[in-house]
Amino acid sequence: MPESDYAAWRARVESALDRALPGADEAPQRLHAAMRHAALDGGKRMRPLLVYASGTAFGADAAALDVPAAAVELIHAYSLVHDDLPAMDDDALRRGKPTVHVAFDEATAILAGDALQSLAFELLADAPFADGVRVALLRELSIAAGARGMCGGQALDIDATGGKSVSLADLERLHAMKTGALLRASVRMGAIAAAADAGQRAQLDRYADALGLAFQIRDDLLDIESDSATLGKTAGKDAAQAKATFPALLGIDGSRARLQALATAMADALAPFGERTARLAALGREAIERRR
Amino acid sequence: MPESDYAAWRARVESALDRALPGADEAPQRLHAAMRHAALDGGKRMRPLLVYASGTAFGADAAALDVPAAAVELIHAYSLVHDDLPAMDDDALRRGKPTVHVAFDEATAILAGDALQSLAFELLADAPFADGVRVALLRELSIAAGARGMCGGQALDIDATGGKSVSLADLERLHAMKTGALLRASVRMGAIAAAADAGQRAQLDRYADALGLAFQIRDDLLDIESDSATLGKTAGKDAAQAKATFPALLGIDGSRARLQALATAMADALAPFGERTARLAALGREAIERRR
Repeated sequence: MPESDYAAWRARVESALDRALPGADEAPQRLHAAMRHAALDGGKRMRPLLVYASGTAFGADAAALDVPAAAVELIHAYSLVHDDLPAMDDDALRRGKPTVHVAFDEATAILAGDALQSLAFELLADAPFADGVRVALLRELSIAAGARGMCGGQALDIDATGGKSVSLADLERLHAMKTGALLRASVRMGAIAAAADAGQRAQLDRYADALGLAFQIRDDLLDIESDSATLGKTAGKDAAQAKATFPALLGIDGSRARLQALATAMADALAPFGERTARLAALGREAIERRR
Repeated sequence: MPESDYAAWRARVESALDRALPGADEAPQRLHAAMRHAALDGGKRMRPLLVYASGTAFGADAAALDVPAAAVELIHAYSLVHDDLPAMDDDALRRGKPTVHVAFDEATAILAGDALQSLAFELLADAPFADGVRVALLRELSIAAGARGMCGGQALDIDATGGKSVSLADLERLHAMKTGALLRASVRMGAIAAAADAGQRAQLDRYADALGLAFQIRDDLLDIESDSATLGKTAGKDAAQAKATFPALLGIDGSRARLQALATAMADALAPFGERTARLAALGREAIERRR
């Protein structure tokens, strides 16, 4: 996948987010500035890229995908704001910038996260699709964000911190919820927006589940092997918090082997689609090979 | 309005919330228990009652209104959980029970609030209406909850705390967002579910705006005149936090006079509808006369 595709899609979602977010000059300014700090100009935009790659593979125009891409990124951005709070991971650095509660204050960070979540659903209610598609997108994102998805996974992650014994199956379930649910929703929302059929979606789910797990294993390896400047967030956190991780359970070599197996699973899942899912395949490789 | 109507609607929404919330025996148990603590068995249920009163006035069955009633209450419940956090109002008592961060912990309270918000939208995506109605309900609630509604009002409220000078117009705007937006959304969602026409909805908005303001003025008076045991939350907070309030700007007598003017405004707004909005009228009186 040429880097220019990534760049064009990133520019699209940045612009969609900029349009969707309330202006920093509009009252309450501090809240709006915090929301913009959290959502704009940062991150790999993996989730929006998945929406675009999945949607365009099945015939949607990139322009029609701007809203679902922005919505899923707003959910991701809000989750980072709340995860970084002192009562949660207590982190000062995110996407190479001070976290929201450091740049602003804790109350503003809580509220900004809350308002980003609302905004994601508000956007989807006006997405440029028929009402039935809007409802399907809203259902997909709300389930992925909630107690049976991202929030539930984060709660399991807190339970698994501090040196508790966690099995590999538990760890996979935790991450299938914490990061996997939203990555999977990104792929599915692109497919829903493009009106892919149920069989195609089921096949895409196999890809998305492998991708989500691979993304997290790579995250765990980067936390060990990289540094904060490269990551744009604090490195070495997992060991400091005695978190259950894939390298801790599988070893570093075992984790790398698992990544390769997941790369094969992704390729197998996409094989029936041929060339049109080349960009999804490239994003799968990116999840496994990324340096940050 | 007979007390039995309130009781029946409260039982309906309690049951709808119980069905919608994840089980406390399902992992992650602590998150789910916190969500249930926050949303079940508490509060006046003013917002659900408004949904039922508005919807049944225009011909909807109470059963069809369970989902929008539960959804708006989930948004209200999540906002209380987050407002009570140490970084916000730092409150230990709510609905006569320990607040969620006291009964559980701060991280769980943040996550439980987040997941309650997602659940509200998830419920609406499966509400028993045509897709166009679902989308309209989702749009209404997401806008009311977000930066231009409840979250924005809470941010303005934080700005207005600590003895800052606030004009009456500023205070009205703050509360029109902080509490008014969700009360108004409750009335509107009932009307949307019942397919009330645009003219009827505009007339209901006049009622809802007066109700929202009256509700808040009564809240400010209760904070001065009542005690924590009666309120089920901490009394005397406004003065302790040097908050801008209606009694501080208008005096106690001036606030009561304003309440009476708002009672007239509500009655005028509902007059064209005749007897069918009797229960909305009764809820308007309840907002003004309530003891907690």
